[in-house]
Amino acid sequence: MKKHNFSAGPSILPQEVILKSSQAVLDFNDDGLSILEISHRSKAFIDVMENARALVIELLGLEGKGYKALFLQGGASAQFLMVAMNLLEKKAGYLNTGAWSNKAIKEAKNIGDIYEVASSKDANFNYIPKGYSIPSDYDYFHCTSNNTIFGTQMKSFPNSPIPMVCDMSSDIFSRVLDFTQFDLIYAGAQKNMGPAGATLVVVKEEILGKVSRTIPTILDYKSHIDADSMYNTPPVFPVYTTMLTLEWLKNLGGIKAIEEMNELKAQVMYSEIDLNPLFKGFAVKEDRSLMNATFTLENDKLKETFETMLKEAGISGVNGHRSVGGYRASMYNALPIDSVKALVEVMSELESKA
Amino acid sequence: MKKHNFSAGPSILPQEVILKSSQAVLDFNDDGLSILEISHRSKAFIDVMENARALVIELLGLEGKGYKALFLQGGASAQFLMVAMNLLEKKAGYLNTGAWSNKAIKEAKNIGDIYEVASSKDANFNYIPKGYSIPSDYDYFHCTSNNTIFGTQMKSFPNSPIPMVCDMSSDIFSRVLDFTQFDLIYAGAQKNMGPAGATLVVVKEEILGKVSRTIPTILDYKSHIDADSMYNTPPVFPVYTTMLTLEWLKNLGGIKAIEEMNELKAQVMYSEIDLNPLFKGFAVKEDRSLMNATFTLENDKLKETFETMLKEAGISGVNGHRSVGGYRASMYNALPIDSVKALVEVMSELESKA
Repeated sequence: MKKHNFSAGPSILPQEVILKSSQAVLDFNDDGLSILEISHRSKAFIDVMENARALVIELLGLEGKGYKALFLQGGASAQFLMVAMNLLEKKAGYLNTGAWSNKAIKEAKNIGDIYEVASSKDANFNYIPKGYSIPSDYDYFHCTSNNTIFGTQMKSFPNSPIPMVCDMSSDIFSRVLDFTQFDLIYAGAQKNMGPAGATLVVVKEEILGKVSRTIPTILDYKSHIDADSMYNTPPVFPVYTTMLTLEWLKNLGGIKAIEEMNELKAQVMYSEIDLNPLFKGFAVKEDRSLMNATFTLENDKLKETFETMLKEAGISGVNGHRSVGGYRASMYNALPIDSVKALVEVMSELESKA
Repeated sequence: MKKHNFSAGPSILPQEVILKSSQAVLDFNDDGLSILEISHRSKAFIDVMENARALVIELLGLEGKGYKALFLQGGASAQFLMVAMNLLEKKAGYLNTGAWSNKAIKEAKNIGDIYEVASSKDANFNYIPKGYSIPSDYDYFHCTSNNTIFGTQMKSFPNSPIPMVCDMSSDIFSRVLDFTQFDLIYAGAQKNMGPAGATLVVVKEEILGKVSRTIPTILDYKSHIDADSMYNTPPVFPVYTTMLTLEWLKNLGGIKAIEEMNELKAQVMYSEIDLNPLFKGFAVKEDRSLMNATFTLENDKLKETFETMLKEAGISGVNGHRSVGGYRASMYNALPIDSVKALVEVMSELESKA
């Protein structure tokens, strides 16, 4: 039996992507070789890379707008450094919405002056700050669109007078946005895109080349743009599986179609959290994430029963992060609504037992 | 039919590794989830990471010698920067044996003063310089053990008075060496270890912490050591497949056993190059690589015939690098001797036709 996989990341991928990528490990393109053992300079893989990059631009509606899509390595953690290396001359403004913002701030502070334009630390990051202003003389503004640990999500973005950089690791391709409002978007693949090991960067080229430092080649977005995302050997299999996931999303109807499904899943999930007296949501309602629902079980005595029931129902990965406690249901693009229904059913059953 | 895969990298992996990793994409550990969709913090994956790290130390004979094995991202190209960031206070000595050394030198020059202790550029890198001296007041000495493009390999290493750093991307785990002579070894996985997307670093801990700069967290070996190689989400599938390859190597009898097989393959290959009047080896004999045999076809008119014959024999990936021309037969650990025999047979047939 396939489990209901609520893992926060690396996380569930579409079943057809898993089947195709498993087959490609055995024999890629019926060519007698595994995807793991072909040259990244082969036409077959260059086609994969170019297709993946084009799908990113197409799905985000960024064709002809001066953006480049890159598949790099090192995850969002490497981007915390690369963003600052490439864009930070003097000072930058960061919105602090939790653990990932914090790490981005910490890494950038070694490169220049970082100011927190706002923070929700006062309430353990259970909300998204609003009504802050972004100084126009900063080099860029950085925000985290979705906070996996706290289950909050930015529903709108500020009208930034300076380039806006966004860490979309945990909600990219999940909802319709005007992506032209961002100048640089980055995301680790391992939530809505593919397996761990590939990192997507979408950058508006015109914001580059404005800092005076010598950027190390491997950290310079320009090296990767000039080499069509093949400056050095890319993570072949993670990029291939990401391409398959993007194809799956396109065939489904793109971001608009998945957004509807994600909204429905979230509605089913949060309704249960709100109506079931045993549970309590962590994030404030208006900032609740469509991707990660965080909640606690109010009566500690029911914990063991609940967790046994979850296991019996084949539900996996709903343990909360240690800094929040409780539970977290991650409902990324590939999670079927039936999995949400299965979880909600267990929660509801627990109520009837209690 | 399975091809004879001479690709220079990403390159051939053992067939049993391909079968096992394909199965793990479908269902890992019979647990109902794909290896692509489990948390890197799950016990199942932590076991994979720890097993892979332990196998590295065991196979290299470095147990109890103060070394740590890390699986990072970014390939050797990222290590060109990390080595300098972590070890270079004032100046370092580099041995220049070709394209990869050159890149390492270029990246390190942004961090400090780099001196080439010797170079074989005068002969398009067809040999390994010898008899050079390494100043004892430098921070470290860097060399490239095997040069894929030129087909040369260091047969011995200098008695270095300072920490010795070696890029072993293309010949790690292929031959018996006293690995304690190195203080830092790095290698992209995609030749002798696994698929593209994982980078091995083996570092003697005592050489760290001696530079005065603030090292960005993601580039600091200490961050990765402190987090048991899980500072951020690792490239799960590439690490898993690498672990399978290391298990395969251990079961085969370890480096000693594979070295014998590699020597035999190289002997068969180079004998044909030397005896067949149609072909000429590129590298000087004493420095010939056991991993990559580079050679040219002397009569251009036979090119088309030769390449048609190669194709018909199911031989793939023997095209030479553009900076050397001709052909390159990469004979990494997983390449069966039968593949070498198939290639040699075609070369021999060409001679009888000519």
